[in-house]
Amino acid sequence: MNTPRAGWVDGLQFCNWSRKSFEHMRTAGLSAVHATVAYHEGLRPTLDRIVAWNWRFRDHADLIVPGRNAADLMRALSSGRTAIILGLQNPLPIEDDLGLVTVLHELGIRVMQLTYNNQSLLGCGWQEAEDSGLTRMGREVIAEMNRLGMLIDLSHAGERTALEAIAASKRPMAVTHATPAFWRAGRRQVSETLMRALADRGGMLGLSLYPHHLRDGSATTLAAFCEMAARAAEIVGIRHLGIGSDLCLDQPDSVLAWMREGKWTRATEPVRFPAQPGWFEDCRGFLNLADGLRAAGFAAEDVEAVLGTNWQRFFRAAFRAEGA
Amino acid sequence: MNTPRAGWVDGLQFCNWSRKSFEHMRTAGLSAVHATVAYHEGLRPTLDRIVAWNWRFRDHADLIVPGRNAADLMRALSSGRTAIILGLQNPLPIEDDLGLVTVLHELGIRVMQLTYNNQSLLGCGWQEAEDSGLTRMGREVIAEMNRLGMLIDLSHAGERTALEAIAASKRPMAVTHATPAFWRAGRRQVSETLMRALADRGGMLGLSLYPHHLRDGSATTLAAFCEMAARAAEIVGIRHLGIGSDLCLDQPDSVLAWMREGKWTRATEPVRFPAQPGWFEDCRGFLNLADGLRAAGFAAEDVEAVLGTNWQRFFRAAFRAEGA
Repeated sequence: MNTPRAGWVDGLQFCNWSRKSFEHMRTAGLSAVHATVAYHEGLRPTLDRIVAWNWRFRDHADLIVPGRNAADLMRALSSGRTAIILGLQNPLPIEDDLGLVTVLHELGIRVMQLTYNNQSLLGCGWQEAEDSGLTRMGREVIAEMNRLGMLIDLSHAGERTALEAIAASKRPMAVTHATPAFWRAGRRQVSETLMRALADRGGMLGLSLYPHHLRDGSATTLAAFCEMAARAAEIVGIRHLGIGSDLCLDQPDSVLAWMREGKWTRATEPVRFPAQPGWFEDCRGFLNLADGLRAAGFAAEDVEAVLGTNWQRFFRAAFRAEGA
Repeated sequence: MNTPRAGWVDGLQFCNWSRKSFEHMRTAGLSAVHATVAYHEGLRPTLDRIVAWNWRFRDHADLIVPGRNAADLMRALSSGRTAIILGLQNPLPIEDDLGLVTVLHELGIRVMQLTYNNQSLLGCGWQEAEDSGLTRMGREVIAEMNRLGMLIDLSHAGERTALEAIAASKRPMAVTHATPAFWRAGRRQVSETLMRALADRGGMLGLSLYPHHLRDGSATTLAAFCEMAARAAEIVGIRHLGIGSDLCLDQPDSVLAWMREGKWTRATEPVRFPAQPGWFEDCRGFLNLADGLRAAGFAAEDVEAVLGTNWQRFFRAAFRAEGA
């Protein structure tokens, strides 16, 4: 049995946010959570999502604080609250306007994916047949995100786009939520090539707990997950590994349809959220992960590194403006 | 002949901004200018205007800086640049969403009118037949602006709305650009009642140089304007008087039509911008105002107060968040 720690971090969640979500974060000892604000939303609905977060920060100020910079992250830690880092899984809200990167940054967005499954104005997602790599606007947006201190998230990107983005960026990037392809084959998962390229530039890989990313889906055991984590740590280095649970709790299945189809297509069959493994039904599963990682041979300080201190260190640096 | 001062302030301009505009500000010795971002624009086009300002701040960083707080205003003064304070003459961009006040504040908006000529969701403008006063949402928005440190501008308001707003606000307000009704009759001008109510609560009146606000239009003399200023100072007190030139330079007449008609009506006759008086053709006219005010009997320190130090002191306090 673990005592909740104050310094653990979840590299991505998209729950149907309520006071319960934030209470679970506290019970799990999460000092920071990267929360997805938008999938297929354009700028205007994204502003509504941001407004909703601003009210949550006021209504639940005893549990959560905005996580915009190192000072915020440390304030959350020292006051026993969870810093919420706002992120976009799709660059749709910037439309084709480089100036909207600054607008979204000023509104608190600190993470943005270049692509979400599909081809975007910036590059290509993993589901297209052909990934033609980073576009001209993609390079401009990377430079702007580098300048502002907005983290580039390569989750859901095509491999060529991801590798070209890593080469183009002056600052480290992250794959906030994915699992390695050596464990579960598929283009949504990350190859060893990408893992090494990411880590070589100081980047982070957040291991996902979403069943479709797990080797045996909902039936995957804690031991199997932690063995995979040990192998991943050998590839990227222990300092470059974290957790990005991809928890989507208390959401109706229509939200899964929205994530997959947005407005660009119509579903051909109903979709359902898979059941979480019993040892990670919500973020309180971090306590089980601590046990599992120790059982898989992780030293105590490495457990802390993977469950929190790596993301803490990484985010604090990532959100600094260039030259600040 | 006057040496340009570093501390003068223009309480409102809406020019067709170019490097020339900013060079004139420097020549005029303006340390701060409140610049209108939107008239009848909704949220989305207002974001485009804000993006355009963000690029101007980068492209002309040797001449202008964003003016968001006291530190910015002092930085502009000490570095010989002009702080640009962004404001809205209409609350349309907040739609009916209280949360958008914070969004616009985070994007740099520091001044907002409750109404622009017409009835709004918050209250009533001066051109409606009947002003039914401040609405329920109007009271909410005032409280939110008070909390954030966003200045409430009562220019273009109906008198009842303006007086009720002053009573509802915990913080001083401004009429950034108008002239007194004792000098030129009309509901766009401010009554002695409103002038006294504004000043009693620590508010500011910015005297307009827009010809339709001047007693004799474009033919108004500098001496007549400065005599009016002396009488206004007697009513509001010397510490509550400033300049808000309402300069709209280098704009096509279509912009005047936009200001008047927006999209809510169609013009019945063509409109034209009136010619500025010869002694205030652009903001370099501040140098003539200094001469004129002295000639009208203003003491040297009172000239400085009206041309700049009053707005400087007022804005520095107005942009502080409540409790900060």
